[in-house]
Amino acid sequence: MSPRPELDRLRVVLVSSRNPLNIGAAARAMSNFGFLHLRVVNPYELAFREARSAVGAAPLLARAEEFKTLAEAVADCTLVVGTTAVGLRQLHHPVRRLEQAAPFIRKRLAASPVALLFGSEKHGLSNEDVSHCHWLLRIPTREEHRSMNLGQAVAVCLYELARDPQAVPKPEKHIAATAADLERLTSLLLDALRSSGYLKPIPDGSQKRRSAAPTEEKIRRLIRRLQLSATDAELTLGIFRQIFWKLGSSKTPTAER
Amino acid sequence: MSPRPELDRLRVVLVSSRNPLNIGAAARAMSNFGFLHLRVVNPYELAFREARSAVGAAPLLARAEEFKTLAEAVADCTLVVGTTAVGLRQLHHPVRRLEQAAPFIRKRLAASPVALLFGSEKHGLSNEDVSHCHWLLRIPTREEHRSMNLGQAVAVCLYELARDPQAVPKPEKHIAATAADLERLTSLLLDALRSSGYLKPIPDGSQKRRSAAPTEEKIRRLIRRLQLSATDAELTLGIFRQIFWKLGSSKTPTAER
Repeated sequence: MSPRPELDRLRVVLVSSRNPLNIGAAARAMSNFGFLHLRVVNPYELAFREARSAVGAAPLLARAEEFKTLAEAVADCTLVVGTTAVGLRQLHHPVRRLEQAAPFIRKRLAASPVALLFGSEKHGLSNEDVSHCHWLLRIPTREEHRSMNLGQAVAVCLYELARDPQAVPKPEKHIAATAADLERLTSLLLDALRSSGYLKPIPDGSQKRRSAAPTEEKIRRLIRRLQLSATDAELTLGIFRQIFWKLGSSKTPTAER
Repeated sequence: MSPRPELDRLRVVLVSSRNPLNIGAAARAMSNFGFLHLRVVNPYELAFREARSAVGAAPLLARAEEFKTLAEAVADCTLVVGTTAVGLRQLHHPVRRLEQAAPFIRKRLAASPVALLFGSEKHGLSNEDVSHCHWLLRIPTREEHRSMNLGQAVAVCLYELARDPQAVPKPEKHIAATAADLERLTSLLLDALRSSGYLKPIPDGSQKRRSAAPTEEKIRRLIRRLQLSATDAELTLGIFRQIFWKLGSSKTPTAER
């Protein structure tokens, strides 16, 4: 069911969760990121399967496996990773930041099941729980405010695991306007600017042609900086054609007075 | 207050959020990852500041700024990014995956304020909201279950932005125009387009106000795509002021005939 078979080997294990809304939220994030196997150890409220927060993830929640002990819940896994906000007690265990932990977990997932544990909202994982872990993972939160909401912590960890490190930006679909389009646009804008009085009109003898050049170049550079797509160049040309036409057509009556 | 000054330039903007618990959860995630500036536009429940879900983030929530319109909420930002679960309507805008979007956002944050928008739980961002954005960002969720919980979506985006502090970029040389400049330019261009007859004028009764919206949004999106620098925005404003003035002043004699 998961689009990426390796993700299908992760077991998200919630240990002694107190609030069923958090279990539901965890289920929703799992479903969002394609991790479909939830295990629950000793939930505080037995009716967690009805959690309304599992929007779109009701089937996943219904299939959640329930265990009495953590040992049973992780029995089939070759790697058990506990999450922590890091306290002194965890010095017994190696702790990796989430970004650094993810490649290890993904590597293992390619071959065999991995358990990712989340403790209770109030106390996190107990020392006993942690003793089942190979190592610990911490989400890089601020010193001053380490403790995350359970549903959010699950979402962030799963995002990092699903995140594609290979994801290279694809070439843009942006089809750029041609130089000819841009030049048409430039002349039209210059015409409009002369009609509107923003620029001085070019005298007929065109002796002063040269003195107009710096401003023209400024406008030409402006148009190039816009990095217009072909479509936007078309749109903009239409706009200026209409403006120029209007400026032109209204000039005559004024001049006639 | 934030350990990383560049993160301090992000404004998390929640638009028309319905559930105060989600606003509180967003505040908690912000505090966890060191983003301390929350802006709220038209919240459904006014008492959001008491949300109990803001565990450890009550001060951040108390300092949240409230706005009537999105335009005001993003006025000081030089980059406005909307989040989306991606529907057909967003084809008007470039959409980047979160992993690819983050470097662009961080780069801009090194120099100036950036707004990251989250729409309502039910409908996401409206077309009008989206027309204020330079581009859109999508969290890489599964096709089959795209829509995330609001608090979890905020947590995942902020984690990605705070992730890997080694990747602190240098500020760009380009000083981008603020959203307020762009909105001024948008209104001026719309005025000019109405004066020139490119757009229909808004009738006085303004009953038809709504029917003008798609074109207005089209023009608003166009202006955002141009990626104007502060200087070019100034230059362009001057151009349109003059054009608009001329269109206006030349209209009168024509009408008098």
